[in-house]
Amino acid sequence: MFEDRIARARGRMEELGVGVLLLSVGADLPYFTGYTAMPLERLTMLVLPRAGEPTLVVPALEAPRVEERPGVFTIRPWAETEDPVAIVAGLAGRPGRAAIGDRTWATFVLGLQEALPQTGFVPASRVTGMLRAQKDPAEIDALRAAARVVDAVAVAMKERPFAGRTEADISRELVERILGGGHERANFAIVASGPNAASPHHEPGERVVEAGDSVVCDFGGTMAGYCSDITRTFVVGAPSADMSDLYQVLFQAQEAAVQAARVGVSCEAVDAAARSIIAAAGYGDFFIHRTGHGIGLEEHEDPYLVSGNPTPLAAGHAFSIEPGIYLPGRYGARIEDIVVATEDGPERLNEAPRELAIVG
Amino acid sequence: MFEDRIARARGRMEELGVGVLLLSVGADLPYFTGYTAMPLERLTMLVLPRAGEPTLVVPALEAPRVEERPGVFTIRPWAETEDPVAIVAGLAGRPGRAAIGDRTWATFVLGLQEALPQTGFVPASRVTGMLRAQKDPAEIDALRAAARVVDAVAVAMKERPFAGRTEADISRELVERILGGGHERANFAIVASGPNAASPHHEPGERVVEAGDSVVCDFGGTMAGYCSDITRTFVVGAPSADMSDLYQVLFQAQEAAVQAARVGVSCEAVDAAARSIIAAAGYGDFFIHRTGHGIGLEEHEDPYLVSGNPTPLAAGHAFSIEPGIYLPGRYGARIEDIVVATEDGPERLNEAPRELAIVG
Repeated sequence: MFEDRIARARGRMEELGVGVLLLSVGADLPYFTGYTAMPLERLTMLVLPRAGEPTLVVPALEAPRVEERPGVFTIRPWAETEDPVAIVAGLAGRPGRAAIGDRTWATFVLGLQEALPQTGFVPASRVTGMLRAQKDPAEIDALRAAARVVDAVAVAMKERPFAGRTEADISRELVERILGGGHERANFAIVASGPNAASPHHEPGERVVEAGDSVVCDFGGTMAGYCSDITRTFVVGAPSADMSDLYQVLFQAQEAAVQAARVGVSCEAVDAAARSIIAAAGYGDFFIHRTGHGIGLEEHEDPYLVSGNPTPLAAGHAFSIEPGIYLPGRYGARIEDIVVATEDGPERLNEAPRELAIVG
Repeated sequence: MFEDRIARARGRMEELGVGVLLLSVGADLPYFTGYTAMPLERLTMLVLPRAGEPTLVVPALEAPRVEERPGVFTIRPWAETEDPVAIVAGLAGRPGRAAIGDRTWATFVLGLQEALPQTGFVPASRVTGMLRAQKDPAEIDALRAAARVVDAVAVAMKERPFAGRTEADISRELVERILGGGHERANFAIVASGPNAASPHHEPGERVVEAGDSVVCDFGGTMAGYCSDITRTFVVGAPSADMSDLYQVLFQAQEAAVQAARVGVSCEAVDAAARSIIAAAGYGDFFIHRTGHGIGLEEHEDPYLVSGNPTPLAAGHAFSIEPGIYLPGRYGARIEDIVVATEDGPERLNEAPRELAIVG
């Protein structure tokens, strides 16, 4: 599998005139090797030339945790008094163009630019982004398994009342359920209640949830390396008529975008499918983010469902569809599922009910 | 406080000829503003010119979570179809030299270099590193409070037997106790047993701990923004004579390095204080990492106690002292405390007993 992925990356490097791929923190490295770099100031970097043997440059103290993979990479441990940037530069040769992992720390980018003054650098996602976007069946299975867990969490959250509890407390319950469901990591657990629900990336705090609140819960984590991400909106007691109307618009917009997400349709057209419904209902100014993002080894990756992205969806693309409507100072709502584009049409991986969920 | 820190950064920018400081993910941004960027593909960046008003460029959907701080920064939210790199470049002016946060993603570094072709980029740590290294009394108090928690965890770990449990299970207990003690986050919880104890950054796994094992537990997290980090070595039942001898050498080396950590002494001299004792006992080849690292808002930051670093310690520097000895295929041990250099000599923040801890 890794050999095959590396071969495809090399084809893309050829197209782009990239002589070497330099991968550190982030998901490209595990995608090609199974190994994840520790996000520390000691550099770990795979040097993958277009032709020739890949080498993983790794701190000596971490070398014992790396399983060498003949054919995929050999390792070059570096001691505390060595300069890892110089080692990488030496292994890279003198390429005209190098692609460097998108999340590589600035210190290492600047160091490598100084060590390789004749080399132009581009982000590695130009090589890897659309390769990684197209998931194979095992990857879709991993995303589906992760989705099942957060589906069950969304349903289980209705068991306990929300009223009288802080956002932070409800967020803790989400995290515990995500981990209890078998995720190795909870990546985020947004709980945004009442007026806070109008803040899409609200940080759960000490606000106590009250009757009548809408509560946006957006949560996800990582299981067997692949990410989950779901949003459901809850309401304490009965929703107001305004809230019901707004939610119906949102529900239809999300459904329309999911149905639009067919092979060959552009990313921006999927975004427009949700946005046009919300705009037609008069909420256009209150849907302040894109409709979705790709998902896989990373929570957010290619393809992005956003105005201005003409990329056509392909079979195997996995992404969120998550329109939201946010009324500043009042309340907000969002509905999010992970969807896969298939030759038979869009397949939702999340199946938890997406109606406005009434809780105590 | 923020104004004062910004003023000091500007003094350093003046010295280095840096026209603008560009801060994104990482600890520099909260150090100067109290706000932490979300580590996402949507750029958050503070543009802090040497003279003039700082501006926080932030995704519109995150703007509601940012508390504007007049005098420290104003905010410039950007919509999904805007280019945040162009916005930052416009605010930056055309500086000859810009300092960019060390952990800024490569994509943004490359984008800014393209947008500002006349500007030379250097890592922000040249401006911020030694400012942040020198902690004020409130920061030392925060580190001390975090250290107290992990001290208590180290002691409490002796309550339950280790034998028969997996490393992963013991690691989970560490995480639960760290969070239970009031940390908002557990950053790592290394449990390395038996031969795995010879791997300094071992990932806790399914190995079951047995009688006679040494077990290196290295754990820490974040409380009120500041980090804890402690290592204690446990042994199941009685240690072998070899292990006792090795541990005595390590104990003396750690003590010697702590005592060496006085104001005015160089970082490399502190490293040498531990290393010379370990080398004299014949274990020199088995102490494969530096003696320590600074700690504060980040687990690892300036100053680094490593051969080749002539920086003299100053009052308020906080750092780990953590020599280790690792016998490949056999076992290993490490002792780590956080220490602060003061005018009255070194002050250990960790007080948990550091003798080899016998467990069931």
